Amino acid sequence: SHPERRVFEDLRQGNVGCVTVTCGVWDDTTEALDHIAQWRDAVRANADLVAIGRSRAEIEQIIASGRTAIVLGFQNTDQFQGRIRYIELFADLGVRVVQLTYNNQNAIGGSCYEPHDSGLARFGREVVREMNRVGMLIDLSHVGERTALDVIALSERPVAVTHANPASLYPHRRNKSDKLIRALAEQGGVIGCALYPNIAGGPDTTLEAWIDMVAWTVELAGIDHVGFGSDKSINGTQADLDWMRMGRWTREVDYGAGSATNPGRPKPFEWFQTMADYPRVIEGLRRKGFSPDEIEKLASGNWLRVFGATFGT
Amino acid sequence: SHPERRVFEDLRQGNVGCVTVTCGVWDDTTEALDHIAQWRDAVRANADLVAIGRSRAEIEQIIASGRTAIVLGFQNTDQFQGRIRYIELFADLGVRVVQLTYNNQNAIGGSCYEPHDSGLARFGREVVREMNRVGMLIDLSHVGERTALDVIALSERPVAVTHANPASLYPHRRNKSDKLIRALAEQGGVIGCALYPNIAGGPDTTLEAWIDMVAWTVELAGIDHVGFGSDKSINGTQADLDWMRMGRWTREVDYGAGSATNPGRPKPFEWFQTMADYPRVIEGLRRKGFSPDEIEKLASGNWLRVFGATFGT
Repeated sequence: SHPERRVFEDLRQGNVGCVTVTCGVWDDTTEALDHIAQWRDAVRANADLVAIGRSRAEIEQIIASGRTAIVLGFQNTDQFQGRIRYIELFADLGVRVVQLTYNNQNAIGGSCYEPHDSGLARFGREVVREMNRVGMLIDLSHVGERTALDVIALSERPVAVTHANPASLYPHRRNKSDKLIRALAEQGGVIGCALYPNIAGGPDTTLEAWIDMVAWTVELAGIDHVGFGSDKSINGTQADLDWMRMGRWTREVDYGAGSATNPGRPKPFEWFQTMADYPRVIEGLRRKGFSPDEIEKLASGNWLRVFGATFGT
Repeated sequence: SHPERRVFEDLRQGNVGCVTVTCGVWDDTTEALDHIAQWRDAVRANADLVAIGRSRAEIEQIIASGRTAIVLGFQNTDQFQGRIRYIELFADLGVRVVQLTYNNQNAIGGSCYEPHDSGLARFGREVVREMNRVGMLIDLSHVGERTALDVIALSERPVAVTHANPASLYPHRRNKSDKLIRALAEQGGVIGCALYPNIAGGPDTTLEAWIDMVAWTVELAGIDHVGFGSDKSINGTQADLDWMRMGRWTREVDYGAGSATNPGRPKPFEWFQTMADYPRVIEGLRRKGFSPDEIEKLASGNWLRVFGATFGT
């Protein structure tokens, strides 16, 4: 997402207490530092609306001040450029949520789109231990199944799937097996049910159907292990989508979560056009019969707990 | 290897017509460019002894002039930093031999030291096609078995194992199965029997035993598919060895081709202390009964053929 005031206003209008933003996909170290610096500038320029949150306590203070906490994250690990010691440096700069692989295999492990998943590789074992040590939340969203299960077995802290859905309901390579969701929950982690149409039945999925999926995921994982994962590209152009999908690794077309018949930017759900629409999701949970206590867990409590258990040393 | 005049003099004394040098292991793009630039300076300063060879014709001209051809190579692909388009740029700079993985898995495929080999990954398929297109020889030496077999199936040009031995004779993760060696040969490739003691029975292996291994490999692959692969670190310090093994990916000790009981730089074979000792290897082949024609193939003809079939567009 490109940070600008209108987006921060949407977050406030939607009463969103905290979002994780992507400061790196295919980007190398220097490029990721540029993105972090850009976010710092944007947050400083809009300090009445947002602030960067590095710990559960900071995030709660930011929410209490009536602003939205911005958590810095990566959706890949190319940002480390193979250096185990850069993980600590990025942690010092506030990066708190890092997905181990994006759409391709890397030195850490396999991706959900690879024909074969290696499982956690040699460098991957080092990275998991180091992220545990410095206090970064490990994100398994685009990670392959076998690698993800290896990570859950090795990690000494809870891990997350920040943005994916159960593959049992919406079959898609990006979505997660019941086995994986159960293992994640048993370890104290959270799955963020995703509002990205391509992995949630397409743009015509109704709010009621999406809420049914949340209820089904709660049945599977337990009320303490489910949250929201917007997976929302904001201000995204076709060039941004091409960058996310093809980066610099191919001259061919790669459709990512799309397909040859659905190649472009997906139309958002009618009921979730911008981050200002989050209250509709809350209202949907109410109509479904979730209690205020349960809604609090799904909308913020579970993420705050896992952030508290994983952010910082 | 660190380029310096003494080493180039050894090459001439050993009547070595061509060597491939390593301009990148864990090095990123900029670091690899520095190494290439350093080799250019060294070659210019010693133009009476060496020249950079980019094609079979150039290499043969350099040999005919009484000098040694230097072929620029990488033992990894971190140098591309994930950019498919950098392969063409490095080819333009003269890089001709590139090993797809070093000791760890990467976005291309699995390494011989990984617990599980992914096979050729999504980016790997792009890289094989691009190296075929621009004319770089694909080196499978440290690559995992499954990935290597996938590469042989996909590549439209012959590929090489520039420095490894048959695992049937010297069991070691770095060495190659009979199946792989046969597949490589069937496609027109070459395996360079390695003079690195850790993967050839240890420092006490005699010249006769090493020559027996070459003869056995010729039985397996055919006389047109075997060569030499010195795998010689020259001027190497313990720090250089640590860099090759640990790079920046771990704070722990990794022994590479060594082990806890053999952690340091291996003692070279008594009969192969420097590149000036190559005539002893030739003499060993003669004593074993190889004909002059066969020796010519093993010592230079096979490599020249595969270079001719793969270098340049």
